[in-house]
Amino acid sequence: MLHFGAAYYPEHWPEDRWPEDIRLMKEAGITVARLAEFAWSTMEPAEEQFELDWLDRAISLLAENGIVSVLGTPTAAPPAWLTHKHPYTLAVDDYGRSAQHGNRCHYCANSTEYHAHSRRIAEVMARRFGSNPHVIGWQIDNEYNRVCYCSRCRARFHEFLQARYRTLDALNARWSTAYWSQTYSDWEQIPLPIGGHNPGLLLDFRRFITDSYRRFQRVQIEALRPHLREGVWITHNFMGWFDAFDHYALTEALDIAAWDCYVGAGYHDRSKQAAAHDLTRGFKRKNFWLMETQPGCVNWSSLNNMLNQGEARVLAWQAIGHGADAVLYWQWRSAYGGQEQYHGSLVDQSGRPRLFFEDARRLGQDLAAVADLLDGTEPLGQVAVLNDYESRWSIQWQRHHNDFDYVSHLFHYYRPISEHNIPIDVISADAPLSDYRLIVAPALNIMDEQRAAALVDFVNGGGHLILTARCGMKDRDNALLPSRQPGSMLSELAGVEVAEYYALDKPVPVQGDWLQGQSRLWAEQLNILDKTVSTIARYGKSNGWLDDQPAVTVTNRNGGRVYYVGAYLDDNAQDVFIEHVLKAAQLAPPFDAPAGVEICPRSGADGRLVYILINHERAHQIVSLPWAAQEHLTGQRVDGTVALDAYGIAVLTQV
Amino acid sequence: MLHFGAAYYPEHWPEDRWPEDIRLMKEAGITVARLAEFAWSTMEPAEEQFELDWLDRAISLLAENGIVSVLGTPTAAPPAWLTHKHPYTLAVDDYGRSAQHGNRCHYCANSTEYHAHSRRIAEVMARRFGSNPHVIGWQIDNEYNRVCYCSRCRARFHEFLQARYRTLDALNARWSTAYWSQTYSDWEQIPLPIGGHNPGLLLDFRRFITDSYRRFQRVQIEALRPHLREGVWITHNFMGWFDAFDHYALTEALDIAAWDCYVGAGYHDRSKQAAAHDLTRGFKRKNFWLMETQPGCVNWSSLNNMLNQGEARVLAWQAIGHGADAVLYWQWRSAYGGQEQYHGSLVDQSGRPRLFFEDARRLGQDLAAVADLLDGTEPLGQVAVLNDYESRWSIQWQRHHNDFDYVSHLFHYYRPISEHNIPIDVISADAPLSDYRLIVAPALNIMDEQRAAALVDFVNGGGHLILTARCGMKDRDNALLPSRQPGSMLSELAGVEVAEYYALDKPVPVQGDWLQGQSRLWAEQLNILDKTVSTIARYGKSNGWLDDQPAVTVTNRNGGRVYYVGAYLDDNAQDVFIEHVLKAAQLAPPFDAPAGVEICPRSGADGRLVYILINHERAHQIVSLPWAAQEHLTGQRVDGTVALDAYGIAVLTQV
Amino acid sequence: MLHFGAAYYPEHWPEDRWPEDIRLMKEAGITVARLAEFAWSTMEPAEEQFELDWLDRAISLLAENGIVSVLGTPTAAPPAWLTHKHPYTLAVDDYGRSAQHGNRCHYCANSTEYHAHSRRIAEVMARRFGSNPHVIGWQIDNEYNRVCYCSRCRARFHEFLQARYRTLDALNARWSTAYWSQTYSDWEQIPLPIGGHNPGLLLDFRRFITDSYRRFQRVQIEALRPHLREGVWITHNFMGWFDAFDHYALTEALDIAAWDCYVGAGYHDRSKQAAAHDLTRGFKRKNFWLMETQPGCVNWSSLNNMLNQGEARVLAWQAIGHGADAVLYWQWRSAYGGQEQYHGSLVDQSGRPRLFFEDARRLGQDLAAVADLLDGTEPLGQVAVLNDYESRWSIQWQRHHNDFDYVSHLFHYYRPISEHNIPIDVISADAPLSDYRLIVAPALNIMDEQRAAALVDFVNGGGHLILTARCGMKDRDNALLPSRQPGSMLSELAGVEVAEYYALDKPVPVQGDWLQGQSRLWAEQLNILDKTVSTIARYGKSNGWLDDQPAVTVTNRNGGRVYYVGAYLDDNAQDVFIEHVLKAAQLAPPFDAPAGVEICPRSGADGRLVYILINHERAHQIVSLPWAAQEHLTGQRVDGTVALDAYGIAVLTQV
Repeated sequence: MLHFGAAYYPEHWPEDRWPEDIRLMKEAGITVARLAEFAWSTMEPAEEQFELDWLDRAISLLAENGIVSVLGTPTAAPPAWLTHKHPYTLAVDDYGRSAQHGNRCHYCANSTEYHAHSRRIAEVMARRFGSNPHVIGWQIDNEYNRVCYCSRCRARFHEFLQARYRTLDALNARWSTAYWSQTYSDWEQIPLPIGGHNPGLLLDFRRFITDSYRRFQRVQIEALRPHLREGVWITHNFMGWFDAFDHYALTEALDIAAWDCYVGAGYHDRSKQAAAHDLTRGFKRKNFWLMETQPGCVNWSSLNNMLNQGEARVLAWQAIGHGADAVLYWQWRSAYGGQEQYHGSLVDQSGRPRLFFEDARRLGQDLAAVADLLDGTEPLGQVAVLNDYESRWSIQWQRHHNDFDYVSHLFHYYRPISEHNIPIDVISADAPLSDYRLIVAPALNIMDEQRAAALVDFVNGGGHLILTARCGMKDRDNALLPSRQPGSMLSELAGVEVAEYYALDKPVPVQGDWLQGQSRLWAEQLNILDKTVSTIARYGKSNGWLDDQPAVTVTNRNGGRVYYVGAYLDDNAQDVFIEHVLKAAQLAPPFDAPAGVEICPRSGADGRLVYILINHERAHQIVSLPWAAQEHLTGQRVDGTVALDAYGIAVLTQV
Repeated sequence: MLHFGAAYYPEHWPEDRWPEDIRLMKEAGITVARLAEFAWSTMEPAEEQFELDWLDRAISLLAENGIVSVLGTPTAAPPAWLTHKHPYTLAVDDYGRSAQHGNRCHYCANSTEYHAHSRRIAEVMARRFGSNPHVIGWQIDNEYNRVCYCSRCRARFHEFLQARYRTLDALNARWSTAYWSQTYSDWEQIPLPIGGHNPGLLLDFRRFITDSYRRFQRVQIEALRPHLREGVWITHNFMGWFDAFDHYALTEALDIAAWDCYVGAGYHDRSKQAAAHDLTRGFKRKNFWLMETQPGCVNWSSLNNMLNQGEARVLAWQAIGHGADAVLYWQWRSAYGGQEQYHGSLVDQSGRPRLFFEDARRLGQDLAAVADLLDGTEPLGQVAVLNDYESRWSIQWQRHHNDFDYVSHLFHYYRPISEHNIPIDVISADAPLSDYRLIVAPALNIMDEQRAAALVDFVNGGGHLILTARCGMKDRDNALLPSRQPGSMLSELAGVEVAEYYALDKPVPVQGDWLQGQSRLWAEQLNILDKTVSTIARYGKSNGWLDDQPAVTVTNRNGGRVYYVGAYLDDNAQDVFIEHVLKAAQLAPPFDAPAGVEICPRSGADGRLVYILINHERAHQIVSLPWAAQEHLTGQRVDGTVALDAYGIAVLTQV
Repeated sequence: MLHFGAAYYPEHWPEDRWPEDIRLMKEAGITVARLAEFAWSTMEPAEEQFELDWLDRAISLLAENGIVSVLGTPTAAPPAWLTHKHPYTLAVDDYGRSAQHGNRCHYCANSTEYHAHSRRIAEVMARRFGSNPHVIGWQIDNEYNRVCYCSRCRARFHEFLQARYRTLDALNARWSTAYWSQTYSDWEQIPLPIGGHNPGLLLDFRRFITDSYRRFQRVQIEALRPHLREGVWITHNFMGWFDAFDHYALTEALDIAAWDCYVGAGYHDRSKQAAAHDLTRGFKRKNFWLMETQPGCVNWSSLNNMLNQGEARVLAWQAIGHGADAVLYWQWRSAYGGQEQYHGSLVDQSGRPRLFFEDARRLGQDLAAVADLLDGTEPLGQVAVLNDYESRWSIQWQRHHNDFDYVSHLFHYYRPISEHNIPIDVISADAPLSDYRLIVAPALNIMDEQRAAALVDFVNGGGHLILTARCGMKDRDNALLPSRQPGSMLSELAGVEVAEYYALDKPVPVQGDWLQGQSRLWAEQLNILDKTVSTIARYGKSNGWLDDQPAVTVTNRNGGRVYYVGAYLDDNAQDVFIEHVLKAAQLAPPFDAPAGVEICPRSGADGRLVYILINHERAHQIVSLPWAAQEHLTGQRVDGTVALDAYGIAVLTQV
């Protein structure tokens, strides 16, 4: 079921306003409201004094008007009485200051007192609403984001390390603590890192943060689950490429993934938004919810411009095209006060629809028209781009070149593939790989035998693999591998090893038979180990070391193929390279479309194949179709061509 | 009486140097010295051990040479014994660190211990010098600027809030604390905000800071007043557009306002300096003192260039033209040590006059020549530009567009009016309005019934009013008004409401019959509510929403007129718009002058009208006069034209 | 003896790897290894439990292969058990936070507990290895750099001040504490300055930091010395222009100076590297060790590019040309873990030579070829550039123009002299001056009678002296001198005084008979006091004050000559000026060389004169010689010309 909705805070308004809000929601075509995720102080105004009747009435009134509810547990914003009575529930920053009330996620995720309070409010809500037929899902907390430096966290970190390493000897060896005399002789000596620190400690600290949120989340899942009726899901709203913790670990215990998609300053970027959707879909390797998105503008950027008229349509449809089963605006209407008065909304301070309301209403109509058609369909990636939080952290802590950003480098591969309208999955480097024709492992810095073996198997099974700069440098302890990049198994697979890596102060020419351009930011100089390896391109005249050395190679293995790209190619060269790779892998779009038009197929288990066409441009465009089609937003039959208005959408099936 | 002076610190020098300093002062034409405001450790070297004889001797020696004194209470710089014995008198920063000795304003304004010590030293000084005929005024403390985060301040803040809201229910409602579960159930739970916070809390915190300084100031006024002879005034030297507190509230209990005018890096800016003078004159709606100004250069900027030769003359005369009754340099001579060794002065380290001394001496001569003429005169604004600290804070905390600065936006209106040589008052949005022909309310974000009613009355009385972008959005609790901008009363008055506001990432065209240009940073899209409203200009092609929508409107009401300017016009368009507005309001300069020549009239109660002409350019300029005049600096009769040298001044009366 | 080496950490590796490492060292021509400076936790894994056998075996194995050792005391990185048991040994930052384990130099240099532990480990090492014939030198600690703000440091600071000033009256007078009521009535009141503060206090705080490190260093010297065999030296590896303390004071008790030379981002800069070598040579006024240098790239810059192939050769030879008697790379091989995984090294993670190894090997061969020739030789400066930490601090705290940087201004004089291939000594402003023909005193801000008298003597002895902008402004307490710049004695010597100084917002023309250009950032307007003074150049049209005023002057005194340069000349004008000065001082290079070729003579006590020619360019160059020569790297006889490849070196003696 495809849902359309908004975050709604009835607790901000007198109850006699609710009917008018809900009337307007119906007018906008809204089918789901997200409620309660910041309402703790309203639901439990004093300790163990619960007031949930208002929420029940809101859910009922919505339901009477055909709108279902998703409930948030309110733990991102504890009541003042709670943190005031239990000050150790507050997170502590790296200056030793307790977080202030009036914020979000200002709790310490390891506070057992906070666990108890969170469990109780979640359980009380679940007992009351878990079996409510109009409550279809639950969101735990809101946008986890805090890192705490309190002494309790430090003690928990020591326990975490003990569980991981068993002995200090093991930890000392794996962290190379002989370096700088860092050797630990007592677990208590290990600090929570402030700023830079030992790479092994830094990586484990991120794992510990992940683990802390997992435990905090588990407390609530266990409080909710027993009381939920069959089919009701639990999720959390993540923040796209945010990286304070490992999202694969956090989503394991959730039923579905969800994220909050904001453009912030500027306008939507086709590839960036697409990649973030694919990332979120990859958390659970299935469809997800867009739990929040931007109704026009936000309030938290340095320049909170409004999206263009009609642009929201493209944003929403692209989410759906990449696997969203719901699109919810944040928020329905701003409270009179509070930090987000300037945030976009559907209804303004006066209670009347804002101009954006019309964009939303139109979207509501569209979604209603195709909800049944899209039900049970999902995108199926043909290419996998591997994403790894550990590699990302490792590189971000040690960029070597300040402009080398892990996610930008991933986009560097994602973008040209996506612009060919080839469906992509962004998945964990530890996910199963066999379903793909092509796998890209951008800067997969952290490598272990299991990962390497999976990639070897993939290639031996006929797959095409791109290894890139900064692949295979470190082990799971963030220590250097004892072999040269990309590590012994992948070196053997690719037939190359990295003789040296270079942060580039200026671009270096890259030349080959069919590939010319420059490498910017980074260059790896390759040693060719194997006669089967072809050099696609070499570096030109540069710092002396790189001159005329191999930059990009390829080799065939058992029907599969392995590229090693030591260069960080300029965009034009990257386009040429990727086009070559896609052709070799026999990857082609369903049909041709002009630049700026995206084709997003969603497939059903029944073989149904729905094409969502998205015109990302503010200009009219024509798409030629290879077959006759049904357009489902207009209900019209299409032969030959589809005309798309500025920011226009078409939803097609072949007839 | 027009005064000319300098800050003088006899406590830095051996007493046998004083006669030479005072001889040089006389040579420079100095008539007043400011003394003692940093001399606490000299006046009270140990607790309750007072040594004031030296100061008495300095005052006497000055007086013998015709120089009167202004005394500062020394509380901006407590002695080390005081803060060392009473460490809780020190302000605490937002990291919990106590301020260090060796600074300025490093006390907690709410410390009762500090109040007691301040009261005592003020009283001791007043008993000794209050009736001294050579002491004509007192300055309390120096440049209030500190914000303290100590636990005592937090407790005082709670009391402040209790007094303001009576009940937590009221506070919760008016701060919309249901938002993010911020509801307070105990006053003690309310934090002092560090960084961003609830807009209501932020605003009240600024009010509390204002209130804290008021109480601190009152302690000293009450200590001084009973001991001062008739006619001796009390002031404080403010810092122009500094905004840590509400200056209208702080100046209420003072007799006159004063400020410290520094250019810092670069050179003087005609409009900026003028606006700051008008601001300060507006605090008490009467003439003020320029308590400090820059003798050549400062030491605290990142580039402390020297003003051009002669430029100081323009700076001083512009201050007088805008209502200064005194101009005092900071400082006479630098101490050998201390933080400000590189600051400009009249006498250098060697005790000899610096080159700047000659600029000062010339000014001293000028002032002496016209002191009688200007005595009892003051500028009379024909236009009021409304200034509001609450609106300013509200916008600065939530700029929405990072480049939208409240004061720059105010200048945007001030500058072109000022360049027409129309006298302007910058006054509180709560001041009486009836004396003006035109009122500009730049970004008057905070609106209540009283303010709106005063503006309605003004227009109904025949006045012309400019409402601008960001007017009338919030109430006095910094909460959104329940009606659209500019709020119900002003919407009715202007005949428009703001359908939507936009932070602009790029300029948008604005077009009308006589107005073409661009809106930058900001655009408000207007709904016209009333057939009397004319659209002066519309937005051009842009983000879709704004295209062809009203940007600037005007309507006539009972002989008055109301403009609503939703755009932030480019400078050229703004000039055209303002010229139109001034013409419609029948506002014209006393006579024409070339660009770069400012005309500052000062009027006496006796009908005397003195014109100060200021050539802001470094080039010779000619001004044609409509009447024969007397020039008072040269004492010459002028017919037809006045020639002004580079940075030249003329002081004219009609004959 | 000329040494070639690397930092080697056997404690990071299994002992069975050592032979392979040492085999590779021999292959590279390495003659010295630096060991143990971060090995405390390996040498003393638990309190008073010492394990030094491994180090003994490493020293022996190295020695068996002809490699001597330098040992570091490991106090820059205390073991975790130490700081955990004695938390007050940790430095405290200006937010009151204790430093974290896992860092470097995170101890409080004033901790007596830390002194005790440091003394013990140093003594244990010295007892074991002091008489070892293969240990030729000791390095104390590593790159002193920390400033601590703990309460113990504050108490020690009070003692330091008491020793310096005896009475608070003296301190108050010399710090001008009457200013801002800073007067101290108890030593305890004096803070450790955080951020800006009283200039006198700031200067004494730097002296105190210097003193703290001196005491900390002395503890170790005293622990080591009694156990060292004859001829074994003690040093510390400083960081070039680092300025947290006075390096002249710190090097007094050391036998030789040493420094760690890193390029960081970008490429080597001939003058900057040269000046830093000359600075270090100036610490002890004799040859020094390059204790660390960059094998290709570093890891700590924002852009860690690799040096060009061959560039390391130039870096190393330039060090030797400027007095290095040893060049050691940091480091031999990176540990698998630890913060510096990305740092350049000679051997990579796999244990195999990196590409850079070949550059190092070639250098090893070269050095071996000329080690005997260079033994006992040293550079002899003909020009002295005076360097003064106190002047530097004073200016950096009060730059007045943000772009005025003390060291850049020193380079401004160093560079053109150095480019003429005139040997320069960079020495303390308090060092003996009589050996020089020309002395430059760039921005020698702090002046006392002794310094001034030495400069007067120098000129009266026939020397040429350049006084520059910002000379002679302050006394040793960082207070303004009671006379105008450059102070009374030097004013008399130079025949000028500074009428006014100006931070320039834009360049000002400077014109003279043979000197035209601009002054940027700074201008001093000179009063000519003496008829013997010639004005070399005047300022052009500018801010009015400077127009047509003297900018650069010269006068002859008793066969000597004094220039006063009030301008900060643009680079071209500076070249012209310096060329003129050198000619007048009859300073000429040994022979002519193309731009980009540096000539570094080293002289032996036996009259031997060895010329090291360095081609700083990446292009072939030809040098014509005035005499027949022997080239010692190739062993070939050279008549007429020497051809230098890109980054080529020649080592010549006249035959």
